[in-house]
Amino acid sequence: MVSVNKPRLGYEVPAQIGMAEADVETPALVINLDAFERNLRKMRDIAKAHGVALRAHAKAHKSAGVAHQQMKIGGAHGFCCQKVSEAEALVNEGIDDILISNQIVAPAKIDRLMQLAKRATLRVCVDDLRNVKDLSTSAQTHDVTLGCLVEIDVGAGRCGANPGAAAGRIASGIDAAQNLRFDGLQAYHGPAQHFPQAAKREAAFAEMLDKVKATIADIKTRGLDCAIISGAGTGTFEMEAASGIYTELQAGTYCFMDAAYMGVRTQDDQPAVPFENALFVASTIMSAARSGTVICDAGHKSHAVDSGLPLLFDADGARYVACNDEHGMIDDPKGVLDLHDRIRLIPGHCDPTCNLHDYLIGVRNGVVETVWPVTARGKLL
Amino acid sequence: MVSVNKPRLGYEVPAQIGMAEADVETPALVINLDAFERNLRKMRDIAKAHGVALRAHAKAHKSAGVAHQQMKIGGAHGFCCQKVSEAEALVNEGIDDILISNQIVAPAKIDRLMQLAKRATLRVCVDDLRNVKDLSTSAQTHDVTLGCLVEIDVGAGRCGANPGAAAGRIASGIDAAQNLRFDGLQAYHGPAQHFPQAAKREAAFAEMLDKVKATIADIKTRGLDCAIISGAGTGTFEMEAASGIYTELQAGTYCFMDAAYMGVRTQDDQPAVPFENALFVASTIMSAARSGTVICDAGHKSHAVDSGLPLLFDADGARYVACNDEHGMIDDPKGVLDLHDRIRLIPGHCDPTCNLHDYLIGVRNGVVETVWPVTARGKLL
Repeated sequence: MVSVNKPRLGYEVPAQIGMAEADVETPALVINLDAFERNLRKMRDIAKAHGVALRAHAKAHKSAGVAHQQMKIGGAHGFCCQKVSEAEALVNEGIDDILISNQIVAPAKIDRLMQLAKRATLRVCVDDLRNVKDLSTSAQTHDVTLGCLVEIDVGAGRCGANPGAAAGRIASGIDAAQNLRFDGLQAYHGPAQHFPQAAKREAAFAEMLDKVKATIADIKTRGLDCAIISGAGTGTFEMEAASGIYTELQAGTYCFMDAAYMGVRTQDDQPAVPFENALFVASTIMSAARSGTVICDAGHKSHAVDSGLPLLFDADGARYVACNDEHGMIDDPKGVLDLHDRIRLIPGHCDPTCNLHDYLIGVRNGVVETVWPVTARGKLL
Repeated sequence: MVSVNKPRLGYEVPAQIGMAEADVETPALVINLDAFERNLRKMRDIAKAHGVALRAHAKAHKSAGVAHQQMKIGGAHGFCCQKVSEAEALVNEGIDDILISNQIVAPAKIDRLMQLAKRATLRVCVDDLRNVKDLSTSAQTHDVTLGCLVEIDVGAGRCGANPGAAAGRIASGIDAAQNLRFDGLQAYHGPAQHFPQAAKREAAFAEMLDKVKATIADIKTRGLDCAIISGAGTGTFEMEAASGIYTELQAGTYCFMDAAYMGVRTQDDQPAVPFENALFVASTIMSAARSGTVICDAGHKSHAVDSGLPLLFDADGARYVACNDEHGMIDDPKGVLDLHDRIRLIPGHCDPTCNLHDYLIGVRNGVVETVWPVTARGKLL
């Protein structure tokens, strides 16, 4: 009954190319292509000025369409992914250089990782000698050589070996293992991206850099070089870029921005994160039955609220104040919004928001120019 | 390269029927089928004892497989959906009685609603006379008659006309409109589901019931009957069931439960919500590089945190304390968890969690018995 190959407009897909933006079915994820491209060029220029490579994080958008633009006009030389299935989906669409910025430990996933390594330049992060053994065994079975970065915990308290000798021992283990190649370090500080105070962010960065340097030094004593030092996100990337230590930047959100990153540098009179809002949830007012409040059709299932509620773009006093699965409650004290009105929401957190949608609708001058599938949507495995 | 019709194990689908539960790829959404079926029977028996119908809310699971079990052993006579595309996906899988417990206002969606009304018993909620006009025009075009419930705001401050005469005028408008049929009221109080204090919940319910009765009375003076009074959720359904006013219950979460509903009645020495945890995110420890903390492979993209972090099931002192997109940080003071260990998380909120997954894996006695697609996953339109 349903054609698998031709998504139906307004059912599987909210828009088609050439359609007016005002006719896009809602809720839908819309990209302002002009702002998106300015973001890509700005990051390209900053990375270039500092002589660091850009390995954009594809977990932010999960879309091959976006990734190809990041390469074509944004200077990206490769991508990060968090999951094997995410990487696989992008390799299927022509992305050929991916770092899995994460540990892959399940046997079936390691097997798929090695199969994928035959089709693309692939690297993975490691923080445990037991994992080194498993990776090496599978790489031998598949007759591939896999590049490995040792992940160190630089303050985030998430994955990663302790810096220094603990990480060095894993580097030696990789170097000694059959069919693995030690390529360098993964050193990413997630929380530091979101510290609102410049001083706190700088202190976290300085501490992180000390840990990276100490680890590089330990590894040097083992006769090994760290060809790659990979890390950074949209909240700190200027510091990694200027460090003289990091060789590549893993920022992801910069291409779209979101409410969390827009609001992060509001303290201490700092300049904001230097990118524009390019991603919106287009939504429609579906109920205006009582004065002062209207209800829109975009709730938890249209945008993630883990980093806060979305902001209304061009709001004129209206505020998105509460959220249910498929409803957004909007305070509208001036009464500017009515039934059928369309609004644009800046999502709180772009990464899990993109993961809720099957398509990204690119618009320019009020017309739909691109309809990009969210290629790796839901690829959790 | 990728077969559309045959999902690949461990890539698109985390399990296959007959597999050991311990071999399910993670993260994955797993149903304890015994607990699930006990939940279904319990709700069936409570509804039957009070002589009310069960119109289970499909937004909780979005799965035709679950819905068919709710009919087969759980006594459900029909379902609620929030979106036209959600309803359409379930009708395609044999669900034939659906109330869209929401306003449908966009022209293209109204058109699809009428097309769907030719294939199933369909009703929709209305809170605005402008919407009555649009629905009637489209129903005439499609030569269908659509049942409408007037939604009233009973305290949630979300959608819904004011109770009493304002709602009565809409009922009259529906009755007067060509090809629409006035069927009764939608009266759902979302926030009341989550009031922790019994007294507060009872007060909200009493206030709600007064509003429903006042609206029924107004509608009676217009010569109309409310054949259906629909509402209730997993947090209050015992009161609606016993009210003598409500004719059908819209509970959804009861079949799975989640951490939010498990924790809601902890104050005032009340009995808990009378259902068992039947839904889990199966996850694997992917990093154990430092003592006291381990990292699992399930984060924001595996479970929704809008109602709080997930709980560890059978935790032995370990606690899920923080969340990133694809990582969960687990405090493990006793050191009971290590690399490769499997854990089960009770998601904070089951509805948006199901919406993140493509499959629900049903297990019994440690063996995978069912693999149900999340039929309406991502159906936002």
